[in-house]
Amino acid sequence: MEFLNTYLIYLIPVFGLVGILFMATKSAWVSKQDAGSGDMAQLSGYIADGAMAFLRAEWKILGYFVVVAGILLAWSGTTVENSSPIIAVSFLIGAFLSAFAGYLGMRIATKANVRTTQAAKTSLAQALKVSFTGGTVMGLGVAGLAIIGLGSLFIVFYTMYVKSVGGNVNGHEMEKALEVLAGFSLGAESIALFARVGGGIYTKAADVGADLVGKVEAGIPEDDVRNPATIADNVGDNVGDVAGMGADLFGSYVATMLATMVLGREIVSNDNMGGIAPVLLPMVIAGLGLIFSIVGAAFVRIKSENDSVQNALNIGNWASIVLTAIATYFVVQWMLPEEAMHLNREKEGALVEFTKNGVFGAIVVGLVVGTLMSIITEYYTAMGKRPVLSIIKQSSTGHATNIIGGLAIGMESTVLPIIVLAAGIYGSYYFAGLYGVAIAAAGMMATTAMQLAIDAFGPIADNAGGIAEMSQLPPEVRHRTDNLDAVGNTTAATGKGFAIASAALTSLALFAAFVGVAGISHIDIYKADVLAGLFVGGMIPFIFSALCISAVGRAAMAMVEEVRRQFREIPGIMEYKAKPEYEKCVAISTQASIREMVAPGLIALITPIIIGFAFGPEVLGGLLAGVTVSGVLMGIFQSNAGGAWDNAKKSFEKGCEINGEIYYKKSEPHKASVTGDTVGDPFKDTSGPSMNILIKLMSIVSLVIAPHLSSPTGEIAAKSKLHNTTVQTEHVIKVDNKI
Amino acid sequence: MEFLNTYLIYLIPVFGLVGILFMATKSAWVSKQDAGSGDMAQLSGYIADGAMAFLRAEWKILGYFVVVAGILLAWSGTTVENSSPIIAVSFLIGAFLSAFAGYLGMRIATKANVRTTQAAKTSLAQALKVSFTGGTVMGLGVAGLAIIGLGSLFIVFYTMYVKSVGGNVNGHEMEKALEVLAGFSLGAESIALFARVGGGIYTKAADVGADLVGKVEAGIPEDDVRNPATIADNVGDNVGDVAGMGADLFGSYVATMLATMVLGREIVSNDNMGGIAPVLLPMVIAGLGLIFSIVGAAFVRIKSENDSVQNALNIGNWASIVLTAIATYFVVQWMLPEEAMHLNREKEGALVEFTKNGVFGAIVVGLVVGTLMSIITEYYTAMGKRPVLSIIKQSSTGHATNIIGGLAIGMESTVLPIIVLAAGIYGSYYFAGLYGVAIAAAGMMATTAMQLAIDAFGPIADNAGGIAEMSQLPPEVRHRTDNLDAVGNTTAATGKGFAIASAALTSLALFAAFVGVAGISHIDIYKADVLAGLFVGGMIPFIFSALCISAVGRAAMAMVEEVRRQFREIPGIMEYKAKPEYEKCVAISTQASIREMVAPGLIALITPIIIGFAFGPEVLGGLLAGVTVSGVLMGIFQSNAGGAWDNAKKSFEKGCEINGEIYYKKSEPHKASVTGDTVGDPFKDTSGPSMNILIKLMSIVSLVIAPHLSSPTGEIAAKSKLHNTTVQTEHVIKVDNKI
Repeated sequence: MEFLNTYLIYLIPVFGLVGILFMATKSAWVSKQDAGSGDMAQLSGYIADGAMAFLRAEWKILGYFVVVAGILLAWSGTTVENSSPIIAVSFLIGAFLSAFAGYLGMRIATKANVRTTQAAKTSLAQALKVSFTGGTVMGLGVAGLAIIGLGSLFIVFYTMYVKSVGGNVNGHEMEKALEVLAGFSLGAESIALFARVGGGIYTKAADVGADLVGKVEAGIPEDDVRNPATIADNVGDNVGDVAGMGADLFGSYVATMLATMVLGREIVSNDNMGGIAPVLLPMVIAGLGLIFSIVGAAFVRIKSENDSVQNALNIGNWASIVLTAIATYFVVQWMLPEEAMHLNREKEGALVEFTKNGVFGAIVVGLVVGTLMSIITEYYTAMGKRPVLSIIKQSSTGHATNIIGGLAIGMESTVLPIIVLAAGIYGSYYFAGLYGVAIAAAGMMATTAMQLAIDAFGPIADNAGGIAEMSQLPPEVRHRTDNLDAVGNTTAATGKGFAIASAALTSLALFAAFVGVAGISHIDIYKADVLAGLFVGGMIPFIFSALCISAVGRAAMAMVEEVRRQFREIPGIMEYKAKPEYEKCVAISTQASIREMVAPGLIALITPIIIGFAFGPEVLGGLLAGVTVSGVLMGIFQSNAGGAWDNAKKSFEKGCEINGEIYYKKSEPHKASVTGDTVGDPFKDTSGPSMNILIKLMSIVSLVIAPHLSSPTGEIAAKSKLHNTTVQTEHVIKVDNKI
Repeated sequence: MEFLNTYLIYLIPVFGLVGILFMATKSAWVSKQDAGSGDMAQLSGYIADGAMAFLRAEWKILGYFVVVAGILLAWSGTTVENSSPIIAVSFLIGAFLSAFAGYLGMRIATKANVRTTQAAKTSLAQALKVSFTGGTVMGLGVAGLAIIGLGSLFIVFYTMYVKSVGGNVNGHEMEKALEVLAGFSLGAESIALFARVGGGIYTKAADVGADLVGKVEAGIPEDDVRNPATIADNVGDNVGDVAGMGADLFGSYVATMLATMVLGREIVSNDNMGGIAPVLLPMVIAGLGLIFSIVGAAFVRIKSENDSVQNALNIGNWASIVLTAIATYFVVQWMLPEEAMHLNREKEGALVEFTKNGVFGAIVVGLVVGTLMSIITEYYTAMGKRPVLSIIKQSSTGHATNIIGGLAIGMESTVLPIIVLAAGIYGSYYFAGLYGVAIAAAGMMATTAMQLAIDAFGPIADNAGGIAEMSQLPPEVRHRTDNLDAVGNTTAATGKGFAIASAALTSLALFAAFVGVAGISHIDIYKADVLAGLFVGGMIPFIFSALCISAVGRAAMAMVEEVRRQFREIPGIMEYKAKPEYEKCVAISTQASIREMVAPGLIALITPIIIGFAFGPEVLGGLLAGVTVSGVLMGIFQSNAGGAWDNAKKSFEKGCEINGEIYYKKSEPHKASVTGDTVGDPFKDTSGPSMNILIKLMSIVSLVIAPHLSSPTGEIAAKSKLHNTTVQTEHVIKVDNKI
């Protein structure tokens, strides 16, 4: 125990290493599986090539960005007082690992898809095993790399800035170490922005383009090999749903740990680890979550064709959550002191920040919030439930009422998540103060590996179905992949609920960390300038969404024209006599997504810098609050509206009863529902999920610049007040005492 | 001058009386005009009857509401410490006057419509004169009644609470007088809520229902006499656009004055009126604006058929704004002292709240904000500009891309208004502190009579066109009314921009007044509970919009079924041989709107009461900020998206060029644009404008309950903090000194 107390810090990366080892084993197993016939291999080869083509194009432009941003960071590190150029190194490592995690996930997904199709020839159980193992590789890769990266860098910076100079774990030295570490999170989140936004634009441009001409104009089914955009569509599943989601959660995972560590530094903790326990705790929790995700994954299996795939996933998920929660209880008991003080809040008369049981309570709050958000999301987007049924009913009076119905459902669906979130903020704060809010997020994110495995399983199954369709395999194969795909649609929806909840809690943790680091003690929206910041912040998710949506619209129109051109100019496509030029459609999606992701990306990166330096930290705090509230709302609204439209459309495949009549595909109500689904596509897969990154990235940028913002005067000076004014500065009491 | 200084307070209602006298003259003139042939009179009779049927049904339910709310107010006034049952009287008068103003407007509008049709037989100039005079009656009625009501009640309460006991104008007595006066604003805004929401649901249920069956299924033109829903549709124009808009602006007008008066009480002003000048100023500005609106109305005229109607309206509008601004300059110079102090802000070292030039500067800021908001709204919704053209282009690939395009434009259109608003907050605060923010709103609202005249002119012209179409008058008549109607569409859009800007500034003024009255000195979103309040507040506009939109959806579907039934069961309608049962459609819209307005109304009224009493004033402040930011954004988004879709559809009437081809009505792109317009209808006329009332009503409810909320502890006590805590209360320094 003595040994553990001393060396725990060095053990953290080991958790990550264990994850990577398991990942490698599982990856090797997937690669060993049969990849099927020549036709299938060829199609999956197209998809893999398209995905890599996108990654290469993305990396090229991200390379420029990372180098420029790194140089700027290094330069400001040498010139701005109290900062260090080493943050640039931290940034580059974060960016690299995030990109690498995306690459790993995409590589395995493009291998697992065709092998799942092949496995589906034998049994559903085998198909589930291959596709879920593929997802597990992604999950373990992301979580493992994140823990290794963050844990190792922390060891380095802690040794460098704190230990080597005999610094205090609550003191300025530790603050500096964490400031430099924030670069890692900034790097990860920057890559995530482009991966999520670029991937989102890619996948929906291809999807919408393929549907508008293929399904609507040419009347051929989805994933038909004759459709020139079908390969791009399948690449999009990997680019958006695998790589984009992976980068998103990689970013949340890292940012949550970092924010909790920053807040942990402000805790004066009389523990057995020299006071560093609150800083280490989030990484340890993440490590435990990773281990128990591996355990939980072993529970995901079915035996016969009639077993429920959803149940199998649920059991695995719950196993990992419950085991992590139990383990966390003991770890909290071991690591933390009975109660701990807060460094800076003496003046508020609240020295005790938390008790150890309070911290565990906050972690439970985080787990409950995550679970409830997933359940609510599922309710609003699942087939057969009231929301989707109401959209189906409104499809009977045409396109317009279908759209009106979906928009109303999306807006309505914000109510419960926001109440849960507000209660979560309130509850976790009640249990353990601001540290509690952050550790709740950390608790929720602990089983990220499992969540991602479940998320990534969906697009792999989707792709497998696509390959089965394109290779014209027997119907029972497609039937099995359809079974998996249907479950994948549900997990995609709940995964989005989880991702938004995690982004919201992460942003709040970062927000709290920002306020501490900026050296201000409140963000008062009764001040005119802070209120103005709140308004501007609230607007940013709207323009960000508008840019994402119209980017998809533009790219989809280019795709439509290309597909029309191929149908017109290449004779024999419709008779299977000529091959469409898949690569041209892949190129359109790739170029459009790369081009269109720049503007929203820059908004997210630059706005906080401009506002922060022009108006000071308190106005920037108002801006962040506005972005977070509005971003969470717009994220939920758009994701759920899109999900509900999608399943309303899917409901027509089995037939929908409206006012006593049954309607099927090709009926007028079904056509209306296709319109809703098409509108919902960019909502649920581009702009909606991008909100997560937007709010996190703006928070992390603010945290990074926080130490360098000018003194917290906050309120603007009314002109008439210029005389008769006594300047009042706020003193933040910094206690550098050893305990 | 001495006389004026002493008796100015008694002169304020005289401004209102002047307005009412002019209104009566103009109303008599309109009534005297020729109402046309028997057919026209009959049709306009249907419309007038339908409108009155709605008003009666609405009044009945509002009667219950007002009585219950009045009793509750009176009861709480007798039981809660420091309050008075007289607030119930104030509330009842406010509710009555708001309803009465709506009645006056609707009566004149339903008279002016048919007379405009008749006048259009002779000339465009005459048609403009009749319709605009009708609008002026509405504008003068609203502004006149508001000033008479608020001014008279203030005299009563000032005499009762302050003068009779020799109280101080900055003291507790005045505070009490204004608290009771707030009931007037609460009454007005409550009626406005139901008028705006109920009217909005009515008009769009009828419109959407009429279009879906009439235009799309039966293929008959808009306003066709054979369409059973056409009378309901025309009634809706009066109910929604005249009565709803009138009640909305009546509420903003009153609330702005009230908020400025409350903030004015906190100003220690060494003026010639015994220190009451800052309290009186907003009413005086409103009075001046009313007078110069009458003057400006005289400029609205054209001479020949080719004169621009838009120009005539612009000249009248600018004349009233510029004259009011000039007059305001001199009034400010006369009434206010060189500089004035703030009562409660000594501790912040900012005694001087404003200079007299600063106040005038803030008023100019308000005028500029209002003007810019109108211009931006016009840009985003006008034909031939980039936003509408982009929607037209996206109509060429179908319904879905049309919708995506409109949603993107709506979201994008929030950017500039928010920046203008944020700059307006910043600027008016810079010039004159919080009083400056409120007086900016007052300046902007000064020419409400003129704004409303221009707004109400639109639906009168729209109705006139409908009557011309239904009476099958010669094409040149319809051509003239179409000319007016087209201008009316533009003024409707700019009017919405103005209404949102006024609601936003009004809410901020109320917000500032609330903070003062609640006795808290800041609203710190760094506190977990206040932040939770901000989230919940941000969500409310989403659920409010969802309720409004789905209410329209449901009511429209009922309308569709009724129209289909009539076409089916009443033989001869299509051959003009049988009359449709108009009254059945009118009844459906009426009942639906009355039923559906209750739920959103209760949310707006009850939420602040629950949050305020359960969590205290600071959390309520967070809630209000969330509602305001999110409500303004959702209002702009929805109104502009709807306006842009509408004009994209209208553009096809003259033919639209897409990729080198010209498309007209009945083309595929046009059909897609009709879908967009139908989706946009509830956006721009129901949920969008309802945001105004929502944010104002929640602010005014908060202001009314503010004095009774428990002590401002604000931050929730973290459990772990319960020991070791020293309680720190905030002392608000109240100086009751005479100057």
